[in-house]
Amino acid sequence: MIPVDWKSLFEPAHARPGIPGSGRATTLSNTRVVRIDWGDCDPAGIIFYPRYFEIFDASTSALFERALGMTKLETLKTYDFAGFPLVRTQARFLRPTRFGDDVAVDTKVTFGHASFEIEHRLSLKGETCVECAEKRVWVVRDAAGRLKSHLVPEEVLKKFRVI
Amino acid sequence: MIPVDWKSLFEPAHARPGIPGSGRATTLSNTRVVRIDWGDCDPAGIIFYPRYFEIFDASTSALFERALGMTKLETLKTYDFAGFPLVRTQARFLRPTRFGDDVAVDTKVTFGHASFEIEHRLSLKGETCVECAEKRVWVVRDAAGRLKSHLVPEEVLKKFRVI
Amino acid sequence: MIPVDWKSLFEPAHARPGIPGSGRATTLSNTRVVRIDWGDCDPAGIIFYPRYFEIFDASTSALFERALGMTKLETLKTYDFAGFPLVRTQARFLRPTRFGDDVAVDTKVTFGHASFEIEHRLSLKGETCVECAEKRVWVVRDAAGRLKSHLVPEEVLKKFRVI
Amino acid sequence: MIPVDWKSLFEPAHARPGIPGSGRATTLSNTRVVRIDWGDCDPAGIIFYPRYFEIFDASTSALFERALGMTKLETLKTYDFAGFPLVRTQARFLRPTRFGDDVAVDTKVTFGHASFEIEHRLSLKGETCVECAEKRVWVVRDAAGRLKSHLVPEEVLKKFRVI
Repeated sequence: MIPVDWKSLFEPAHARPGIPGSGRATTLSNTRVVRIDWGDCDPAGIIFYPRYFEIFDASTSALFERALGMTKLETLKTYDFAGFPLVRTQARFLRPTRFGDDVAVDTKVTFGHASFEIEHRLSLKGETCVECAEKRVWVVRDAAGRLKSHLVPEEVLKKFRVI
Repeated sequence: MIPVDWKSLFEPAHARPGIPGSGRATTLSNTRVVRIDWGDCDPAGIIFYPRYFEIFDASTSALFERALGMTKLETLKTYDFAGFPLVRTQARFLRPTRFGDDVAVDTKVTFGHASFEIEHRLSLKGETCVECAEKRVWVVRDAAGRLKSHLVPEEVLKKFRVI
Repeated sequence: MIPVDWKSLFEPAHARPGIPGSGRATTLSNTRVVRIDWGDCDPAGIIFYPRYFEIFDASTSALFERALGMTKLETLKTYDFAGFPLVRTQARFLRPTRFGDDVAVDTKVTFGHASFEIEHRLSLKGETCVECAEKRVWVVRDAAGRLKSHLVPEEVLKKFRVI
Repeated sequence: MIPVDWKSLFEPAHARPGIPGSGRATTLSNTRVVRIDWGDCDPAGIIFYPRYFEIFDASTSALFERALGMTKLETLKTYDFAGFPLVRTQARFLRPTRFGDDVAVDTKVTFGHASFEIEHRLSLKGETCVECAEKRVWVVRDAAGRLKSHLVPEEVLKKFRVI
């Protein structure tokens, strides 16, 4: 169980008085191109939607990798960090995609307290296919090895040019 | 592209005047038990969240299978039906689950026009781990083989005891 | 990297002189029923074959769970054990399966040295659809946290009624 | 069920007398780089092996896409073609890979009758991690919509520079 401070989590990202950079969307975003594969698609011939969440999870990692200049594995070794599990996500599916489509995924982040909000926009030839908003928690492991939420480190915020 | 009548889709499920059973939650629900497997989990040792959406998609199918008394493949052959793609979904992750966990998934549905809303509650030992709400469209194939939304057939509503 | 003693691995399972139970197929096997889901299938309407390997991996775990009387998570805590990664696998696909199919998976094991061989037979209504043979290594973590192969513990062999 | 001519399938790829190009490995191969993602890995921190087969399936498609100059979706529309389901596969796992690894996958093909054999070599920094050999059948749909094996079209062989 993640012993999360729910109250702080659901404070809006902009309500973090006295904390530098709080609630300011970073100017740093990331775009990557993803090929939709045959095996991502279902018998209707369109993508099976859980695959989008695999794509978005990797897109969140890609944004952090770009900002921090290191992979998630290196981040786990470098920072007090055990991952950024999802607290909630929501997505709208506007247009289906198919195997062979090369879609673009634009990803940006707004930092809160021990959490951050990610927006993904997945598009094909300029047209939005999926919009997704997710809230994640920065977690560390305590002495007993349990995951618990933790302030996003200042060094991380700096890399994202938020502070 | 699914040429969906977006306006009708986003009418709330309860605003379907003159249509019998409209907006009435069916009394028919379904519960199934799902084992979380090793391969569903990530390096943090907890489930990789896109797996939940695989579970929820199968839970939606299981509810329909129970109500209609036939599998999805048989439904595709029996009804004017090409699937029920997702329009939107949202989920809250309250407690992580781990490989070896046998979770219960309770699924219920409320029918709208050409769409329906599904709620899933995934729990472990009585404690809610994930809540999910999804909106899906009943689609058929037109003469050109394209997917398009269509009124949920009355026979389907009857099987769900809505009308 | 798994620093595996390759030479010992590729000794046939029956060539383990002086080691009790060596190369003797256990009489203990396991059968489980698995539903093939919509999302497991591809645009041809049949299962996307990597899903079979997910099923087989879970079937191997199910066999161990049955024999040891505990889940894989409990096994990781109870035994000197960090998993049983695959060394090789081979599969023949005789008949495709489809969403809605409830397939049976029969799984049996033959123990070697630090490795074991698993055979899976996946069938639908008594007809074999897939045959799979895999070789896995029992691994532990050394002081530095690296995975390395290790003799399958005698207690495990006893539970499998091999010795 | 795929009504496959098993006898012809298991003729070695080089035993296709009188058929031009038969059994000659094409000189055309393909290499692509694939990022191993967090969600591809299991609680041991290494890739969950069924993900390799997803990678290999996409690598086979990529080779065909490169040779034919069109995506699989376009191939389905252009040729008498309903996919190339797997008949058998075998893989050896020599070194595990981890999230953040950018692996190279080299793929080559040898054509048989109605089937072809694919070899994949997945490597990290020049070191082989996985070797895979698969046999696939070229299938078409008959009048009743069933999948059946079919000679690989000559135009396809020409594009692969085999004839």
